[in-house]
Amino acid sequence: MSSIDSSGIVTLITDFGLTDPYVGQLKGALLSSSTKVTIVDLTHSIAPHDIPAAAQTLFSSFQFFPAGTVHLTVVDPGVGSTRKILAATGAGHYFIAPDNGIFTILLKQNIIEDVYQITLEPGARSTTFHGRDIMAPVAALLAKGERLSAVGVPIIKDQCTTVALPGFVEQEDHVIAQVIRVDHFGNLRISIKKSDLDRIGAAQSQMRIAISGMEIAGLSATYSSQETGSLCALFDSDGFLEVAINQGSAAEILPAQLGDQVTLWFSR
Amino acid sequence: MSSIDSSGIVTLITDFGLTDPYVGQLKGALLSSSTKVTIVDLTHSIAPHDIPAAAQTLFSSFQFFPAGTVHLTVVDPGVGSTRKILAATGAGHYFIAPDNGIFTILLKQNIIEDVYQITLEPGARSTTFHGRDIMAPVAALLAKGERLSAVGVPIIKDQCTTVALPGFVEQEDHVIAQVIRVDHFGNLRISIKKSDLDRIGAAQSQMRIAISGMEIAGLSATYSSQETGSLCALFDSDGFLEVAINQGSAAEILPAQLGDQVTLWFSR
Amino acid sequence: MSSIDSSGIVTLITDFGLTDPYVGQLKGALLSSSTKVTIVDLTHSIAPHDIPAAAQTLFSSFQFFPAGTVHLTVVDPGVGSTRKILAATGAGHYFIAPDNGIFTILLKQNIIEDVYQITLEPGARSTTFHGRDIMAPVAALLAKGERLSAVGVPIIKDQCTTVALPGFVEQEDHVIAQVIRVDHFGNLRISIKKSDLDRIGAAQSQMRIAISGMEIAGLSATYSSQETGSLCALFDSDGFLEVAINQGSAAEILPAQLGDQVTLWFSR
Repeated sequence: MSSIDSSGIVTLITDFGLTDPYVGQLKGALLSSSTKVTIVDLTHSIAPHDIPAAAQTLFSSFQFFPAGTVHLTVVDPGVGSTRKILAATGAGHYFIAPDNGIFTILLKQNIIEDVYQITLEPGARSTTFHGRDIMAPVAALLAKGERLSAVGVPIIKDQCTTVALPGFVEQEDHVIAQVIRVDHFGNLRISIKKSDLDRIGAAQSQMRIAISGMEIAGLSATYSSQETGSLCALFDSDGFLEVAINQGSAAEILPAQLGDQVTLWFSR
Repeated sequence: MSSIDSSGIVTLITDFGLTDPYVGQLKGALLSSSTKVTIVDLTHSIAPHDIPAAAQTLFSSFQFFPAGTVHLTVVDPGVGSTRKILAATGAGHYFIAPDNGIFTILLKQNIIEDVYQITLEPGARSTTFHGRDIMAPVAALLAKGERLSAVGVPIIKDQCTTVALPGFVEQEDHVIAQVIRVDHFGNLRISIKKSDLDRIGAAQSQMRIAISGMEIAGLSATYSSQETGSLCALFDSDGFLEVAINQGSAAEILPAQLGDQVTLWFSR
Repeated sequence: MSSIDSSGIVTLITDFGLTDPYVGQLKGALLSSSTKVTIVDLTHSIAPHDIPAAAQTLFSSFQFFPAGTVHLTVVDPGVGSTRKILAATGAGHYFIAPDNGIFTILLKQNIIEDVYQITLEPGARSTTFHGRDIMAPVAALLAKGERLSAVGVPIIKDQCTTVALPGFVEQEDHVIAQVIRVDHFGNLRISIKKSDLDRIGAAQSQMRIAISGMEIAGLSATYSSQETGSLCALFDSDGFLEVAINQGSAAEILPAQLGDQVTLWFSR
């Protein structure tokens, strides 16, 4: 089993929102196990029970943290059922989540190394909030330097639950993808990455992108290489294709919604 | 007077929201008094001036933090008036808030031990933001290990302001309660707890719950013991009765709002 | 060049919102450069690309933090263009931001002392997220005790970009100002400060304030010196004129919006 030196940091991805005290209570449980842990909110605005979004956020974000960080993701529609709770290592990081598909991308990308089923029962547990009552204390233990073997039993990676993720369909001269995120700025993330287009061998300079009855010719290097207010397509900071407007909101202009079809025409 | 070893943690409950820089300025005031304090946001989304909601959030959450934590609650419609500012100890924790009823549940549950009126004036004060100018510096002092006697003068517990809290009316074969919170998931919190039903001697297995023209038969142990999408009632992680839908939003289906009446029929 | 002892604190002002993982990724970049930095969110709810609002929030808030704090403001519509990235000192603090006018008030108030153009390239950079890829690592370096000269080259203050800010027009017996912020409580901030009125020599006790067809006579010392529900005007905790309702929302009653004209009648 891989040995990881803890950074003392625990990151949080949840669908709790910030209105209720759930996030605060979970942090209290972390700090009750170890007052020395540094807690970082990645986001608490995953749509309720949206496991694919949580999987993508975890995969896009963990790499920006120091090695030895514990990444706790609590999107847990199956709380109180027999679903397992998992703790895993990969790329020098720790990952904790319910066994419901949150690890899907980490597994497909061969980032996950060892997976354990958490068996530790840190104390009184509710039937509705295992994030606070089980996962947070375990995260604090790992942040304090405990090994996975202290909190659970190893399981086979292939036994982990995975979920279907939005992708794209490849044809001779085009691919069909979809809008998978509308961000705070109105930028639209499309379900295909630069690495996918490279692999397909699509000529990106000649690409035409059809979305919501409009067409974008070519890819831009940056937002600001376009005139203010003009629609453009570029690769976002996570490598995904993005449809944006320089200093404006693409989501307002188009208008486009989650799941809308996007067609990329190209030659190869 | 009880002696408490500080955990170095200060939690925050406010009605400031996250749009304005008020929360950040209050944190600056805390860190200007002590750069070593660990600050945890419990929530800043209490509805403006909603003292009963702040009282409930404080009571539900403080216990998840290590002993010696300072809990600062700033919901302060009377700022600039002659209302006192209080600092108190109880159950090994510190509590700071305006004297407007925020301590109501802590007082009724006999959790509060000693109460002091804060008389310290840490420096320049505005007339509109005592959370930043008085309460935060005092919280930092307590987190650094100061005693209550260093920041104020003792007062009698019975002199503290209390507010009316939503409860329930008990009849021979039913109780009438109300919806007191609609959370981020659309779960409805009802103004009666498991401990209340135990005390009344209500047979919970046979209970029928009437809300918004619908009826729920019996209580569930967990969300996931019900079919996906079906309405159920259970006790939430704070012990309150909750009306929920497994993997859905009860608030959308019913629909139900704050203050809506809920009737629990039972035998005893 | 002024020498500043770091407080180890980095504050953040952005227009990222809290829905996407951008804030979390930026924090990861900070902590990857230094696990010891203390990160404080001032606000992430600046309206997208609203540079005047970011400039005001920075100016209103930095002073509440200990000397030696690094204030990182990322409102960056020109990301990927040739706009510079600046690091500056002033009043014992560090400031980092794109060169787009965020420092306007700090420059006008003569708070900024030394300004450097950041030339350090901390590693791989995206074309769309310099806050994470350049500014955060530089902020961490300054928080660790590095000097400005280690991250860039000095430039002349007059070369910094500034933006027009909302102000007021002075007449013989009145000034015309505008609503520049509607806060979470529905309080309206007006584009004139107590120090402006003092300088003009306006008699504040006799002042009449006209807004949205209503008139307010005189200024109040505090919210609570008025009856509950009555409209009043006072100076807010940053020194700006504010129109408010004791325990209510002025924005709902009037109704008033950003940019609405406000006339102050006075004698001198």
